[in-house]
Amino acid sequence: MNRRIVLKSRPQGMPTPENFELVEAPVPEPKEGELLIKHDYIGIVPAARLRMSEGPSYAPSTLVGEAVYGQAVGTVVKSRHENFKPGDVAMTLSGGWQEYSIGQGKVLTKVDTTVAPKSLWLGAFGTSGFTAYVGILKIARLQPSDTVVVSASTGAVGSVAGQIAKLHGCKVVGIAGGQQKCEIAVGEYGFDACIDYRATDFPRQLAAATPNGIDVYFENVGGAVRDAVWPLMNQAGRVAVCGLISEYNDGKGPGPGWFNVLTKRLSVTGFIVSDHEELREEFYRSMARWFAEGRVRVREDVTQGLENAPSAFIGMLNGKNLGKTVVKV
Amino acid sequence: MNRRIVLKSRPQGMPTPENFELVEAPVPEPKEGELLIKHDYIGIVPAARLRMSEGPSYAPSTLVGEAVYGQAVGTVVKSRHENFKPGDVAMTLSGGWQEYSIGQGKVLTKVDTTVAPKSLWLGAFGTSGFTAYVGILKIARLQPSDTVVVSASTGAVGSVAGQIAKLHGCKVVGIAGGQQKCEIAVGEYGFDACIDYRATDFPRQLAAATPNGIDVYFENVGGAVRDAVWPLMNQAGRVAVCGLISEYNDGKGPGPGWFNVLTKRLSVTGFIVSDHEELREEFYRSMARWFAEGRVRVREDVTQGLENAPSAFIGMLNGKNLGKTVVKV
Repeated sequence: MNRRIVLKSRPQGMPTPENFELVEAPVPEPKEGELLIKHDYIGIVPAARLRMSEGPSYAPSTLVGEAVYGQAVGTVVKSRHENFKPGDVAMTLSGGWQEYSIGQGKVLTKVDTTVAPKSLWLGAFGTSGFTAYVGILKIARLQPSDTVVVSASTGAVGSVAGQIAKLHGCKVVGIAGGQQKCEIAVGEYGFDACIDYRATDFPRQLAAATPNGIDVYFENVGGAVRDAVWPLMNQAGRVAVCGLISEYNDGKGPGPGWFNVLTKRLSVTGFIVSDHEELREEFYRSMARWFAEGRVRVREDVTQGLENAPSAFIGMLNGKNLGKTVVKV
Repeated sequence: MNRRIVLKSRPQGMPTPENFELVEAPVPEPKEGELLIKHDYIGIVPAARLRMSEGPSYAPSTLVGEAVYGQAVGTVVKSRHENFKPGDVAMTLSGGWQEYSIGQGKVLTKVDTTVAPKSLWLGAFGTSGFTAYVGILKIARLQPSDTVVVSASTGAVGSVAGQIAKLHGCKVVGIAGGQQKCEIAVGEYGFDACIDYRATDFPRQLAAATPNGIDVYFENVGGAVRDAVWPLMNQAGRVAVCGLISEYNDGKGPGPGWFNVLTKRLSVTGFIVSDHEELREEFYRSMARWFAEGRVRVREDVTQGLENAPSAFIGMLNGKNLGKTVVKV
């Protein structure tokens, strides 16, 4: 049988365990061109929360009764596509929170575990790392002289975005929740500084850490963090809006700091990584080199057991994770 | 003597007549390289409100006791610069609300009144028209297939921005306050439609007028108008933030519609026309041709007498003007 975590009800505000249900279903059969993949790891992503809401968005809503959205890395059990054979390792963008999924052979990524271990193909080598790469280089149009601020700077995306900016010669200041995360951002990921947004004088500390202003803001969070960053932006600054995790449950939108968009001539650009597939090969080559040279470091927050995916997810939305959140099935 | 309208006190919220004072001062003497200009027309611009507030912005605040900010067109009375002689007509970006000003010969624009009458060098041929040109073509990166929405669509900037978009083959929908303005936007400026933002079902009417969504939003207003537009934007839509007049007095920033920046991958870009001087010659050539061919039409809202500049300004901030607001000195 295929154990699955399905959406039982749509969350109102922050999700609770009652929004999820563990169910069993027959293991599906691949059709011509398809594979059956047994999941080894599932990636837990904030975007899953976006898909739990109804209404127009950039992606279809998860239906109630459907497996929750997430990428997965697993082992091919049955293949009806010439590119894959049983035993191959594959990464699927739409595997979902379950033990097995069906994938289309022509779109799946075959994973090379000699480059990086399986689970990293959900993190630094997966959608998280690719999102960081696209956002910081293409959307934010990084220049070596930039002062870059990254929110959620120890998260799966933010930690890579900041390290890529460092690799390109930028000054990088992280924002994270709590002293421990800030120490990791500086000590492990090499950020020049990291400010705890929970500090009462957070805006003042951020200003002190960016004496030349901010040229690029890599936005993962929104809310009060954004409202502190925007007034510090330099003229013609760029904001790459990768995520707005603090607003997924109850977004209010920017406060008066929004006005800086006009007065500072900011460019605020939202992006979704799936629009930028043309960069994926270049990303793989770059990340493989940086990782092999030890110039990009990664952390994972591994939860054991599919049944614990909801608590890992809720913990991540509350900032409890340290690094890429994955579930070992 | 030089009659001047000076800032008497900084407005809190909407300006009132008490914030201004008419004073007299000696007519200044030009130094080497300078001109003395006697103002014929003064351009009344929303940006003057921005400069009445203290605190960081894109331009210095007007000091209390200083003439209020505004462009002027006038006649050269004395010249100590080789490019100008008495009797020439000049446009000065910083003439201010007064009868005379000193200008730098090397930066002033000599006005050709055979191309357009004097006052239009404050409107369609002046900063207003140039702002429209830069914003719609360079910042919004106009494409002929775009559906374009312009707020304040009968204003000095919006009316030109919409007409330039029409000249480039776009579908153009205006937003304005009241039926009369909407009729002018369609009947006189050739917009495809214009929606009255005061209508109770304004968001529904706007959606009905843009069945293929909105690709470009030329933003002059902010506030509730913006909050109605953003949810109708198409993927990868572009918002050129030219002004936020409804927020100059008490900005709150975008509401939850802000979220579309992420989900629709919008690019929201603020701009200030003075950053784009490299386009000015191209703009003059284009506007002169369009105007001569009758393809850009203009309206002016002329107030007689310098002493009435404050009421013209307050009226403009309240949307009472129809076309470019100028004061005939």
